[in-house]
Amino acid sequence: MSDDMRTELSALGEFGLIKHLTDHILLRNATTVKGVGDDAAILKYTEAHHVLVSTDLLVEGVHFDLSYVPLKHLGYKSVCVNLSDICAMNGKPEQITVSLALSNRFSLEAIDELYAGMLLACENYGVDLIGGDTTSSKSGLIISITAIGKAEPHKIATRSGARENDLVVVTGDLGAAFIGLQVLEREKDVFKAAPTAQPDLNDYQYPLQRQLKPEARLDIIELLESLEVIPTAMIDVSDGLASELLHLADQSFVGFDVYEEKIPVDPQVARVAAEFNLDHTTCALNGGEDYELLFTIKQKDYDKIKGNPNLSVIGHVTPDGAGVHLITRAGDRIPLQAQGWDALKES
Amino acid sequence: MSDDMRTELSALGEFGLIKHLTDHILLRNATTVKGVGDDAAILKYTEAHHVLVSTDLLVEGVHFDLSYVPLKHLGYKSVCVNLSDICAMNGKPEQITVSLALSNRFSLEAIDELYAGMLLACENYGVDLIGGDTTSSKSGLIISITAIGKAEPHKIATRSGARENDLVVVTGDLGAAFIGLQVLEREKDVFKAAPTAQPDLNDYQYPLQRQLKPEARLDIIELLESLEVIPTAMIDVSDGLASELLHLADQSFVGFDVYEEKIPVDPQVARVAAEFNLDHTTCALNGGEDYELLFTIKQKDYDKIKGNPNLSVIGHVTPDGAGVHLITRAGDRIPLQAQGWDALKES
Repeated sequence: MSDDMRTELSALGEFGLIKHLTDHILLRNATTVKGVGDDAAILKYTEAHHVLVSTDLLVEGVHFDLSYVPLKHLGYKSVCVNLSDICAMNGKPEQITVSLALSNRFSLEAIDELYAGMLLACENYGVDLIGGDTTSSKSGLIISITAIGKAEPHKIATRSGARENDLVVVTGDLGAAFIGLQVLEREKDVFKAAPTAQPDLNDYQYPLQRQLKPEARLDIIELLESLEVIPTAMIDVSDGLASELLHLADQSFVGFDVYEEKIPVDPQVARVAAEFNLDHTTCALNGGEDYELLFTIKQKDYDKIKGNPNLSVIGHVTPDGAGVHLITRAGDRIPLQAQGWDALKES
Repeated sequence: MSDDMRTELSALGEFGLIKHLTDHILLRNATTVKGVGDDAAILKYTEAHHVLVSTDLLVEGVHFDLSYVPLKHLGYKSVCVNLSDICAMNGKPEQITVSLALSNRFSLEAIDELYAGMLLACENYGVDLIGGDTTSSKSGLIISITAIGKAEPHKIATRSGARENDLVVVTGDLGAAFIGLQVLEREKDVFKAAPTAQPDLNDYQYPLQRQLKPEARLDIIELLESLEVIPTAMIDVSDGLASELLHLADQSFVGFDVYEEKIPVDPQVARVAAEFNLDHTTCALNGGEDYELLFTIKQKDYDKIKGNPNLSVIGHVTPDGAGVHLITRAGDRIPLQAQGWDALKES
């Protein structure tokens, strides 16, 4: 192909590329309810339940750094990030497949560690490992996981159901996984300079745990079920709050106002952010990898969720065209842009 | 980890590693009928159909060489090898997910070619592309595909149902994809030596097509349905006839006698094999990548399939413990061993 016909992938970015590749896909089968474009695809075999399918590819040197991530943690995390996508549809994960490409620098004992983490996640979430593929790699470790779950059709929450005046809710707290990554990167540099130094990481345990061993919020799906709340729209926070709000706005044809003072940030995370000269709101907005759930609910459901320590109402849905804005503590109204981690710009 | 606890992956091989990792997996969910160990996992949401799930990971430099495989062909093939796994359960594929890891040496136009091949396969087989993941790669191209299909429960053919005196049937012909690979490797060497030489590949079209653009034998699944034949066991021929017979023997607790003179080999393939000083029976037994179907049927079904040019009866099932044997043209009885392509030994 001649160079004058060459378009660089970085010109599109990850989401642009996915849109370019998948915009014209035809769906042919009666069992396919929804294809590309949400946290999971939706399949239908019976009226009682829909089946949810999601897949992720994790690449060494892009998504993880084996110089500081223990293999067991990596196994656990790689399963959880996939289960999170099923939860983000208001569904419950039941199966995963796991494919691995391994270079021969891995020993059997190392793979056993990785697998132990994966199977621990399966145990904790009641999920079955049902298949996969194992092959060699010319370079790093590649982990490809497909998660399968189910949900009652009327309970499924897609990205497109948010309506004006709905409330915006986020689970847990945000920004911690990003701060954990900063701590790990710093320790890696310290280690390179002085390999015998023993790091004291006691003051960083929460962000480290959030980076190394995130959980999928299946507990929230069960909580919402018991509260009889069905989100109008939902997405998981993998790329940062700002990016996810923009996805919901785009697919629901609405705007959002969210309030800086309402965004949940753990005090330890705020303190460590300051230590790194980072603004903790920026970490929450753009940090990514928190795997919390971001969803919208009807105002009438507010009484059911208020006061729950796992759930923070951070704003409300505005009309289409109003844009996505952060109302700062100072009262300024700042348009949000996605500055989330773009996997395609790292290569 | 200390070196004295290090076990090399090559000591186990691919199948040994999978067995080691998956032998003790628990299945917890009522929707999981069968997990690891066949061409596809089996899930159940309704009595009418079972859902089949299979996944494959294709790695540049291990499974394909972009110096001679056109991207459109690669896209087509990577879908077909996954659909083949669903067919190998006597099921019909309906959906795929596609995850890609790309380095920035790929242009948008190159990815469009890859995707065009994938979507052509989807069109030809009536399959929906429902999701995936796109990320960057530090090195080569990685393609991870999960295929989902369905089958009526009583029609599903696993690897474990072959019974003594059943007939052994293989579709199409064998060894061609391996011979096609030899031709491509030779042309690559010729090109390196004389980059302006124009190869004349007219005499090699059939093996090249079989290597570059294999098909999944969905037509055979439809044929068997119309003939009202349900295989007692089935597997697809991805690693070579010998390896697949050994899988069926192992999981059905039977032996096999197959007859060299009955193994279908295309005349062009036999001629080119001779040109490479290769025995064409050895190519059929150990070559791999043919993606034909190997299955067993009850003797009473013989009349339904006899004379069909797509189906060759190559032998019969013998008792457990009898072993897997090739009866040569000379009448010798040779025990077969798996010499199929072992992905883990290539790194």
